[in-house]
Amino acid sequence: MKKFGTMRVNELDHLEIGGCDTLELIREFGSPLYVVDEDLVRKNCRKFRENFIDAIPGGEVAYASKAFTNLAMIRIIVQEGLGVDVVSAGELYTALAAGADPARIDFNGNNKTPEEIRYALENKVGRIIVDNFTEIEMIEKIAGEMGAVPKVLLRTQPGIEAHTHEYIQTGKIDSKFGLSVTTGQAMEALRLMSQSKNMELVGIHCHIGSQIFEVEPFVQAAKIMVGFMAYVRDALGVTLKELNLGGGFGIYYNSIDTPTSFKSFSQAMYDALREEFQALDFPHPSRISVEPGRSIIGNAGTTLYTVGTIKTIPRVRTYVAVDGGMTDNPRPALYQAKYEMALANKMSATDQIVASIAGKCCESGDMLIWDTSMPWVETGDILAVASTGAYNYSMSSNYNRLPRPGVVLVREGKAQVIVERETFADLIRNDRIPEHLK
Amino acid sequence: MKKFGTMRVNELDHLEIGGCDTLELIREFGSPLYVVDEDLVRKNCRKFRENFIDAIPGGEVAYASKAFTNLAMIRIIVQEGLGVDVVSAGELYTALAAGADPARIDFNGNNKTPEEIRYALENKVGRIIVDNFTEIEMIEKIAGEMGAVPKVLLRTQPGIEAHTHEYIQTGKIDSKFGLSVTTGQAMEALRLMSQSKNMELVGIHCHIGSQIFEVEPFVQAAKIMVGFMAYVRDALGVTLKELNLGGGFGIYYNSIDTPTSFKSFSQAMYDALREEFQALDFPHPSRISVEPGRSIIGNAGTTLYTVGTIKTIPRVRTYVAVDGGMTDNPRPALYQAKYEMALANKMSATDQIVASIAGKCCESGDMLIWDTSMPWVETGDILAVASTGAYNYSMSSNYNRLPRPGVVLVREGKAQVIVERETFADLIRNDRIPEHLK
Repeated sequence: MKKFGTMRVNELDHLEIGGCDTLELIREFGSPLYVVDEDLVRKNCRKFRENFIDAIPGGEVAYASKAFTNLAMIRIIVQEGLGVDVVSAGELYTALAAGADPARIDFNGNNKTPEEIRYALENKVGRIIVDNFTEIEMIEKIAGEMGAVPKVLLRTQPGIEAHTHEYIQTGKIDSKFGLSVTTGQAMEALRLMSQSKNMELVGIHCHIGSQIFEVEPFVQAAKIMVGFMAYVRDALGVTLKELNLGGGFGIYYNSIDTPTSFKSFSQAMYDALREEFQALDFPHPSRISVEPGRSIIGNAGTTLYTVGTIKTIPRVRTYVAVDGGMTDNPRPALYQAKYEMALANKMSATDQIVASIAGKCCESGDMLIWDTSMPWVETGDILAVASTGAYNYSMSSNYNRLPRPGVVLVREGKAQVIVERETFADLIRNDRIPEHLK
Repeated sequence: MKKFGTMRVNELDHLEIGGCDTLELIREFGSPLYVVDEDLVRKNCRKFRENFIDAIPGGEVAYASKAFTNLAMIRIIVQEGLGVDVVSAGELYTALAAGADPARIDFNGNNKTPEEIRYALENKVGRIIVDNFTEIEMIEKIAGEMGAVPKVLLRTQPGIEAHTHEYIQTGKIDSKFGLSVTTGQAMEALRLMSQSKNMELVGIHCHIGSQIFEVEPFVQAAKIMVGFMAYVRDALGVTLKELNLGGGFGIYYNSIDTPTSFKSFSQAMYDALREEFQALDFPHPSRISVEPGRSIIGNAGTTLYTVGTIKTIPRVRTYVAVDGGMTDNPRPALYQAKYEMALANKMSATDQIVASIAGKCCESGDMLIWDTSMPWVETGDILAVASTGAYNYSMSSNYNRLPRPGVVLVREGKAQVIVERETFADLIRNDRIPEHLK
């Protein structure tokens, strides 16, 4: 297991994160447990601040809170000087409750409800990233009724889709998100938005994919976006002053992943942008944003489990079952995502077996890791899975009525709960028994 | 959309369930909303009671509560005279809180924790379905400490796997569940269990798959199980008196599904069992169980959504987005599950377009139905998705911080909340902000 941030092996041969012995964490807070390395979150935030906000005129970074959000996480984001990207009223509610500056909140999403738009306007979110024509009508109506004039960007499809090691450029983007620059729909939407009295059209947005390791698709997308801004100027007489290039910066989950430093991404993007703006004689935007989520919280999160059942089927496979699974980490079941693990209580033991890590749900698909090397393992060992900060807690469920694990923030030997573990009482808190069933 | 149970189209051309106009339900309880047809749940329960409990000596039906559980649902199960199958302490807690008889609770699972075993023993659950050797040791120890002697069955792998329209018979079962009858591991486990003073070995269990439409794999599994019981008698001198054949009875989700009546399943299974018991001169067991989940609640559940964004990408696709998605129904994303839909406010309108139903999560994979025919659709229409009773609410998450929908039980024109819709306050209820982040 690759070690991130403050991870180290202590004198007891235990995995330590943020100066905390992970076995002590399990003893104190129970199992399974999400652990967040505060120093690493802050270090990741600073990389984005230094290489984007500080390095690029008008540079802005909005943390994609769908990756992992709760009051404490947003507090850290605020302290580190980043903005927040929300995709629902629930995320907005969380960001506001944690004290995020509404002016630095972007509201994304392919299907914002009228209630969400109203809520966003009431709370004066900085920018709404408009996805489609239906939403233009909704904002037109609701903002009109409220006398609000929100800043809006249009989510466009630049005709590039990037996934990990490859990307494709295509005119025909089949996506539920945004409007295509090639079909003319994006231009038509911008025309409507620019003519509206109930919104202030400030720019365009794109997001080309997730877990991208190469700079090239970002460079291409940046160029297409600048070219499109110039077309918009020519066609509509509107000089857009904001550009949002979305997120998708890849992180390390396992040895096949080869992340690029954000510094390389940002430099390449900025170089491409400057070149294109200059070539097209287009004024440098007042705001250029990115929306990292996974790359801020992903490798700062580790999940600790306790090993239960160990089952060796002769000549077939060894299953090592832990006390969590697809309920706290649905990514392997959803995307065949691959993770690395270690036995936190015997970090220097050499690998002796190949086994597969099963979750505890009554479901064949509830497997966390297939065929991983590990030391001799025993029931009661603590198994750590790395890089679970993003899209684990945020996607967690109560399937099989498993209470969701707690989340502790660790730093300099101190561990503090930022999300309490759910109790059995929590599971039935919202249950009601009608009179005739009593 | 195929209509189930009390579904009908009323004089306003609206979908009605349990005598309730679905548009009224949305108005009263909000959107999205899970609706459960009480009469149909009870009818499904009765099919199992009549064709198994009443029809087969020693017949028992334990509702697989992982499909959908909450206090009201378990109350109905109890009223209808079924037992309950639980797979975690959380499900057990729910069943007990709803007043289920512990003696009729089966505790399943591939990785029961020591705490769960203790909790099950404290609450005197009727049977523990033991999965593996680790668990035998755990029960041995914990039951010994507590002076309890739980009834136990062993989960075996009969060497049959069935999926929908086909099944395979194989000696090499690669599964995290149970122990194989062909490798000798099941026999070894039964030997240990039969010799233990801390458990009462009563029988064996198998579960051959999900969404099975043909009787043949059940018949084959039943025969293998009986044959194995005879082997156990010969090898260990132990006459097992209970047999649990699991669940997996397929239901209708869409037109490619061809469910078999449970009556056909039960008759074929019972015929096979009687024949084999007679042939092997084996006494009829005192208890023969099945564990239906989906086939009791699946078609009794309907999800109502409100249509938001409608986006036609010329010559590509029309996306119709609703105010829920993979958060309330992860099955399309997880298993490419296929569902049927209708526009609940224009039931008799003829189909005019082919569109794909998108969820509202910021995730490309959040699609509910691809390429379905539907009438002209407008923002604000109410879209019903059928057969969402099983593995929807129970697998739901708060991804994108979407509050989970409420669940209403409908019957004879009356609608009653059985699970309250989550609020934004619920989303941050367990969040804590450490002092240094304030």
